[in-house]
Amino acid sequence: MKTDMSRYLPILSWGRTYNRTALSNDLVAALIVTIMLIPQSLAYALLAGLPPEAGLYASIVPIMLYAVFGTSRALAVGPVAVVSLMTAAALSNIVEQGTMGYAVAALSLAGLSGVMLLAMGLFRLGFVANFLSHPVIAGFITASGIIIAASQLKHILGINAEGHNLLELVISLTEHLNETNWITAIIGILATGFLFWVRKGLKPLLKRFGLPDGLTGVLVKTGPVAVVVATTAAVWGFGLAEQGVKIVGEVPQSLPPLTLPSFSPDLLAQLLLPAFLISIIGFVESISVAQTLAAKKRQRIDPDQELIGLGAANLGASLTGGFPVTGGFSRSVVNFDAGAETPAAGAFTAVGLAIAALALTPLIYFLPKATLAATIIVAVLSLVDFSILKRSWNYSKADFAAVLATILLTLILGVEAGVSAGVGLSILLHLYKSSKPHIAEVGQVPGTEHFRNILRHDVITHPSIVTLRVDESLYFANARYLEDKIQERVAKDKSIRHVILQCAAINEIDLSALESLEAINERLKEMDVKLHLSEVKGPVMDRLKREHFLSEMTGQVFLSQFEATKALGPALAS
Amino acid sequence: MKTDMSRYLPILSWGRTYNRTALSNDLVAALIVTIMLIPQSLAYALLAGLPPEAGLYASIVPIMLYAVFGTSRALAVGPVAVVSLMTAAALSNIVEQGTMGYAVAALSLAGLSGVMLLAMGLFRLGFVANFLSHPVIAGFITASGIIIAASQLKHILGINAEGHNLLELVISLTEHLNETNWITAIIGILATGFLFWVRKGLKPLLKRFGLPDGLTGVLVKTGPVAVVVATTAAVWGFGLAEQGVKIVGEVPQSLPPLTLPSFSPDLLAQLLLPAFLISIIGFVESISVAQTLAAKKRQRIDPDQELIGLGAANLGASLTGGFPVTGGFSRSVVNFDAGAETPAAGAFTAVGLAIAALALTPLIYFLPKATLAATIIVAVLSLVDFSILKRSWNYSKADFAAVLATILLTLILGVEAGVSAGVGLSILLHLYKSSKPHIAEVGQVPGTEHFRNILRHDVITHPSIVTLRVDESLYFANARYLEDKIQERVAKDKSIRHVILQCAAINEIDLSALESLEAINERLKEMDVKLHLSEVKGPVMDRLKREHFLSEMTGQVFLSQFEATKALGPALAS
Repeated sequence: MKTDMSRYLPILSWGRTYNRTALSNDLVAALIVTIMLIPQSLAYALLAGLPPEAGLYASIVPIMLYAVFGTSRALAVGPVAVVSLMTAAALSNIVEQGTMGYAVAALSLAGLSGVMLLAMGLFRLGFVANFLSHPVIAGFITASGIIIAASQLKHILGINAEGHNLLELVISLTEHLNETNWITAIIGILATGFLFWVRKGLKPLLKRFGLPDGLTGVLVKTGPVAVVVATTAAVWGFGLAEQGVKIVGEVPQSLPPLTLPSFSPDLLAQLLLPAFLISIIGFVESISVAQTLAAKKRQRIDPDQELIGLGAANLGASLTGGFPVTGGFSRSVVNFDAGAETPAAGAFTAVGLAIAALALTPLIYFLPKATLAATIIVAVLSLVDFSILKRSWNYSKADFAAVLATILLTLILGVEAGVSAGVGLSILLHLYKSSKPHIAEVGQVPGTEHFRNILRHDVITHPSIVTLRVDESLYFANARYLEDKIQERVAKDKSIRHVILQCAAINEIDLSALESLEAINERLKEMDVKLHLSEVKGPVMDRLKREHFLSEMTGQVFLSQFEATKALGPALAS
Repeated sequence: MKTDMSRYLPILSWGRTYNRTALSNDLVAALIVTIMLIPQSLAYALLAGLPPEAGLYASIVPIMLYAVFGTSRALAVGPVAVVSLMTAAALSNIVEQGTMGYAVAALSLAGLSGVMLLAMGLFRLGFVANFLSHPVIAGFITASGIIIAASQLKHILGINAEGHNLLELVISLTEHLNETNWITAIIGILATGFLFWVRKGLKPLLKRFGLPDGLTGVLVKTGPVAVVVATTAAVWGFGLAEQGVKIVGEVPQSLPPLTLPSFSPDLLAQLLLPAFLISIIGFVESISVAQTLAAKKRQRIDPDQELIGLGAANLGASLTGGFPVTGGFSRSVVNFDAGAETPAAGAFTAVGLAIAALALTPLIYFLPKATLAATIIVAVLSLVDFSILKRSWNYSKADFAAVLATILLTLILGVEAGVSAGVGLSILLHLYKSSKPHIAEVGQVPGTEHFRNILRHDVITHPSIVTLRVDESLYFANARYLEDKIQERVAKDKSIRHVILQCAAINEIDLSALESLEAINERLKEMDVKLHLSEVKGPVMDRLKREHFLSEMTGQVFLSQFEATKALGPALAS
């Protein structure tokens, strides 16, 4: 009973041993993460097309719920760039940005995603996420990063522009370029430049002053806070808002409100696919961060329980004025580097953010939107990495095709089309590959019991025996291919009397493949050729024994290929 | 050049050696097949919702074109039951039966299917058909047989009834049952009974009289001709048409007309999916018949060229007043048993049917539709076979699930939904299975160089070494599963210093799996554990060498598992 409870409530296992050291470590980490999260949360709300406070709300209750249900000790849950972009893409097709309906739809999207994640966790369906291959994810993240950066250029320039793919964005930006507000543009460009310098230039500088690595990392991550303070002060001091610099403006001073998502069946039906994609992509991003951090302390992540933790977090977001959330890379790394020991650090961060939402929002009245856009641009451009194209080209053309399709379709058609196409194409290419398995004709290496490909090695063969090694499990997609290959090989050579299938690499024979083997056996019988098997694996043999095939087979089953050759072609065995 | 030509025109290879013996054999076979095909063609036209002459037309030019382009020497191409049913199902959603538009849509469906088959043949995409697993086909044929038989009951009873799945048909038949024409019903039931007796009772009888097997088979297949003659004579002699017995009526005396399918983009778009399914299912039916017959004479079927042959046949059908056709089982077997030696037999059959279309159609004016329905029912009920359910249940639950879904959805929703669901489910279940591969922890069998599952065998292990054997290729769908399994195994046991992956069953490592291996290597490094590989296959090794992974790997690559254990745990090797 106890173990069952702590499977679903990991808090029970780490909570029991919580002590003062862990508490003080967690508090320090929470303070650092809170400071970093304030501008990031505001910025991602902007990216998702929501008012800035939604970003704070989405970072409070979700973190606390993840602390109760999640298995990672260092993961920080909240709004992240890619999921915020996907939220904006999903909602903009359905409701107009800036309306009440938009915010409600965002709650519904989070709620739907929460339910899906919970269901996948409870029914242990986490494997679904595996169909997002690494190259597809890499391509998707890169293309998304470019779209996100492009979507923020309008804030940097102080103009209006719309679009959810690169094409639309570029066209819209070009059309409105003449409306550029130069003061906004100067703030935006300076902020972006400074943030890039913090990333690239400040780190080596601090290191030269002898600061330890961990502290350097944390200081660099708080760069955005400095920019926020400086630009807010500038706008306030010089009265730049009157010069047309767009600012965040009034943000309600409030704890996260209690909210209800919409249950309109029409709306939910439209959100179904986006919610699914957001859930899967959010889960994949979160679990890879969690596993990387867990490995550093030899801890274990339970993927199914992670689904439950993220599901609870998203349900929490939908009930407290938020939008879809997941475990973020940068905030989790900061949390880890700052010394967080348990999920309690997340809960303390939530308290810090709640205080910010209650007390600090008047301070960001004059914060320019261009500053938030700059923090987003710098954060996402670090995700853009085209090297996956070169790498996949070198390693495997199928992977390359999937990456290229994902990148191009994401840029041209948008995030949902891009990721769906990438997943679809990977699956199709995988099925295609396994539908034409490698089948080698093998012969005996002289003086050994080994058998190798006759095309690659000098081997001994016998004119009346053909031995084929199939390097793939046999199932419906390749069963007929084997029929064709054997028919082709045997029809052209009338001296053949025995066909041996060497089955060492066959992990499964499904019913289709069994029926193909029966057909092969029958057809070979018509040609007066015997069919034999060698090196059949235990589980495959167990299953074959449930059927009549083995008794109908004209030949025998040999434990090893060597024994088969010895029995059928005695002249060979020396 | 010559070989190239005869690849696409198989007629060039058999035509060159054609002689008098082959000619006389082919002529005899053609005569028998022609007699059998007349009622069958009329009946399948009825099933497809078309006027009876369409069945004759669809059997003339398509056969001749297949004779030129096809590779099977015995295959007889024309209307078949399942494809006719699918034609009716596809068209009835779009145009009203009995209208001119319906016939034109049938031409378009055949034309579209012809283009698809040709394209698949030219681009060598025949492997697509492999995704129809044997159990799914078996389930689909069984369910289709039931629907076809049910759809013909209205002709047997002389009532009106509509529907393209079992549910609709049963409801419609029940509603109209009180309108039964009893004379029609008597003819229909007698004809059905007689035809069943011919199949089950006549064969043993003829055998008892000492007739050879081949001849018996041919005689039994001509049973429908006797029924056609007898019932036509009865209707004519007793003036039953005036009693409400529905008859075939006037059929134009004509060679196949030149026709043009519709090129309306709307219509073609609606026909796209049905045409694809008809192409695939027709191809699968045809190729399995062709291969079975070819094996009996040690001949070879080229699947890609078969696609071209069937594509040409369907294009021919669309230009000469027909509807979708494929290689039929029963007519091909009759053709083969009757001694057909070359595709010329098909061409002669076409001539015979052309003569019938020109001269014999007045003779079938009084042929009752109930007789045609009886021939269809008897033909398709022989295809109904539920034993696949039991067989798949015993052999593999995944196959069982796919069969059951196919049968139920075909019966409840119709042929297109049924076969699509079956294919989709087979692919999903296959992906699911390969996403959770069998991973065994292995140890050394004492006194040998063999390594076996520690759960099944008494083996030697070493506390600091974990050896895992993965029984599946590593690709995106199972890469993360491996990460989880290794993390799980190593996190709980702090004495582990080496993890060895035994790779003998791994036929491929895609880029996702490579990145997972890199992540595993990194995480194990954090835990101070080394990662080693053993028994990596040649092609897999070649690919790995293109990347940095092998040089970054903390451990080594061993040729055999035995060498790995010897090197890492010397105490073990004895």
